[in-house]
Amino acid sequence: MAFEFQQLLRDPGCHARTGTLQLGSVSVETPMFMPVGTQAAVKTLDSSDLEEMGYKLILANTYHLYLRPGEAIRSFGGVKPFMDWKGALLTDSGGFQVFSLAAMRRFTGDGVEFQSHIDGSRHLFTPEKVLDIQQMLGSDIMMVLDDCPPGDADEKRLLESLQRTHDWARQSFQYYERKKEEGHFDDQFLFGIAQGGANLKLRTESLATIQSLPFAGVAVGGLSVGETREDFYRVLHHLAPDLDARPRYLMGVGTIPDFLEAIRCGIDLFDCVLPTRNARHGIAYTRGGKLNLRNALHQESRQPLDQDCTCLACRRYSRGYIRHLLRAGEITALRLLTLHNLQFFFDFFSMARDAIRKGAFMPFYEGWKKIGF
Amino acid sequence: MAFEFQQLLRDPGCHARTGTLQLGSVSVETPMFMPVGTQAAVKTLDSSDLEEMGYKLILANTYHLYLRPGEAIRSFGGVKPFMDWKGALLTDSGGFQVFSLAAMRRFTGDGVEFQSHIDGSRHLFTPEKVLDIQQMLGSDIMMVLDDCPPGDADEKRLLESLQRTHDWARQSFQYYERKKEEGHFDDQFLFGIAQGGANLKLRTESLATIQSLPFAGVAVGGLSVGETREDFYRVLHHLAPDLDARPRYLMGVGTIPDFLEAIRCGIDLFDCVLPTRNARHGIAYTRGGKLNLRNALHQESRQPLDQDCTCLACRRYSRGYIRHLLRAGEITALRLLTLHNLQFFFDFFSMARDAIRKGAFMPFYEGWKKIGF
Repeated sequence: MAFEFQQLLRDPGCHARTGTLQLGSVSVETPMFMPVGTQAAVKTLDSSDLEEMGYKLILANTYHLYLRPGEAIRSFGGVKPFMDWKGALLTDSGGFQVFSLAAMRRFTGDGVEFQSHIDGSRHLFTPEKVLDIQQMLGSDIMMVLDDCPPGDADEKRLLESLQRTHDWARQSFQYYERKKEEGHFDDQFLFGIAQGGANLKLRTESLATIQSLPFAGVAVGGLSVGETREDFYRVLHHLAPDLDARPRYLMGVGTIPDFLEAIRCGIDLFDCVLPTRNARHGIAYTRGGKLNLRNALHQESRQPLDQDCTCLACRRYSRGYIRHLLRAGEITALRLLTLHNLQFFFDFFSMARDAIRKGAFMPFYEGWKKIGF
Repeated sequence: MAFEFQQLLRDPGCHARTGTLQLGSVSVETPMFMPVGTQAAVKTLDSSDLEEMGYKLILANTYHLYLRPGEAIRSFGGVKPFMDWKGALLTDSGGFQVFSLAAMRRFTGDGVEFQSHIDGSRHLFTPEKVLDIQQMLGSDIMMVLDDCPPGDADEKRLLESLQRTHDWARQSFQYYERKKEEGHFDDQFLFGIAQGGANLKLRTESLATIQSLPFAGVAVGGLSVGETREDFYRVLHHLAPDLDARPRYLMGVGTIPDFLEAIRCGIDLFDCVLPTRNARHGIAYTRGGKLNLRNALHQESRQPLDQDCTCLACRRYSRGYIRHLLRAGEITALRLLTLHNLQFFFDFFSMARDAIRKGAFMPFYEGWKKIGF
């Protein structure tokens, strides 16, 4: 299988670029958003819904799938056959979830120990172990285990994170290479992750270290984890000139303003639970901003969520109907809003790529920044 | 608009018959099952899902829609435009839900008083009021208000129920006729409801009374409400020879064995929440019986729910995947199982009609009765 990333066009007014990420027979246009299918399903949807929207690359969470269904997934040949997903798949390393979900986690010499949030069972993730799990999951893009410190970490903690993240990155790549020679990780490609918190010097150092290794792509981790938005954007702008030709993935981001800032700084790939989680809280994204469908003002509205949207919810249903379903506790509302929000995100990225192709990303950026998201 | 019911074929071995129910431009083959869209949505689905399965007639609940969204539904022109449902719609009278869901209900001279299960507000349903509500809801088939006694009611209670049910039936029809002359209830047709509990004499009397009124169709109510299955079936067989040419609707039923018995006795229309409620409890119907997807034996199963089913769940997903989604608490599982169960019910009725057309309903009946549903 081929892994190939090709930069197509670079916007003259900023670092934004369009590209094509080829993963086997699947071709992904960038910049692109990846819907999150935490437990081998994007919440409320099935694979046919994602195909219909146009998505070709989704993310699944290693932490969750390792704990449940775990080894059983082998009998299905991995996550993609399990969920009948014909597109490409990226899996994270599980490290982030260990720190956000698991109990009693602590670093050991080898990796990180934790207790399952489901049944309290004890587990150890090491750089090698998470690659073995991702081999079982059968993702096209695997992520290395890293140490992602919280947004308010002090310099000591950041230095510790960098040391560990870099050591693990080297270990991961060595393990990947060695096992590849033994016939493993066929058609699976490895991305490194740079850290450094809000410290620009450490950010430069970490990006240089990760980019010095022959990963297929490079992720920027540890942003949108509690730091100020000012710090977040400062880091992005600081890193932008140093990002090399490989695909660049900004992990766990985010909001429309965050996408605008990050695309401007040359980021190619994004993932976030916000569009799907917000849907389940009754929030719809529109070309005019966000709508809270629980608001009484929508009660008799016969308008679609967004009149320029082509999703099932907008083709057939009114704000008033969706509001009614939401108030009545009907699951259908969660599904319709999820379909809409993911279609909105897909369309937003499509418009962003168009703007870059026309060399007009900055006017696009300015226009969208004015809308209150 | 036309309302027309045509009996097509009568099985020589029993009372089973096929027919066509024409409701405006919508043509419904009978016997047929109506999915229940309580709050203007079949739980977990939207109208496009029902169209894809082949359904053309669904039920919505007057009690729920009267309480929420209530009057707001007028601005949408009724339930059908509200949920963008292009098929036909039957609404119940709301009486049954008053007794199963509402608090503090009691009969008054005029009707039945109750408190909303949502906010405790006080309401009164009368035979006239529930028709006005159903006019607002815009259903094609409206049901009269009746008094449905519990399965263990004594003779005194049954006699009281009959008196009230028959009085209300006459009042309902008079009101319907009078308002129709004034230009109301355009394209809306009224079904009467016969009661009588497990008492065969009262059943005969009630059916005769209801059939003596010029309703568009006749429903058998008060079955599957707690009486023994033996009593239930005895009543069906007792009534079968007396059912006249009009469409016959057995309310709130039910299970596969119940359908078999009732189709055999000449019933044309059914509704029940079981296929959708069971789906949300992890139960799938198959040509071999019911499956509990929570059972560990399905963990590594790559089989579809039912290999003869054409629903989305069976075309693309395995029992093992659906079991995983169910265990992981994913809404997607509830939707896939709902799609499957409703497709199964649609297909079951399609097979039943085929059997009747071939004059072979009794072998069909015998074959399905052997399967443990």
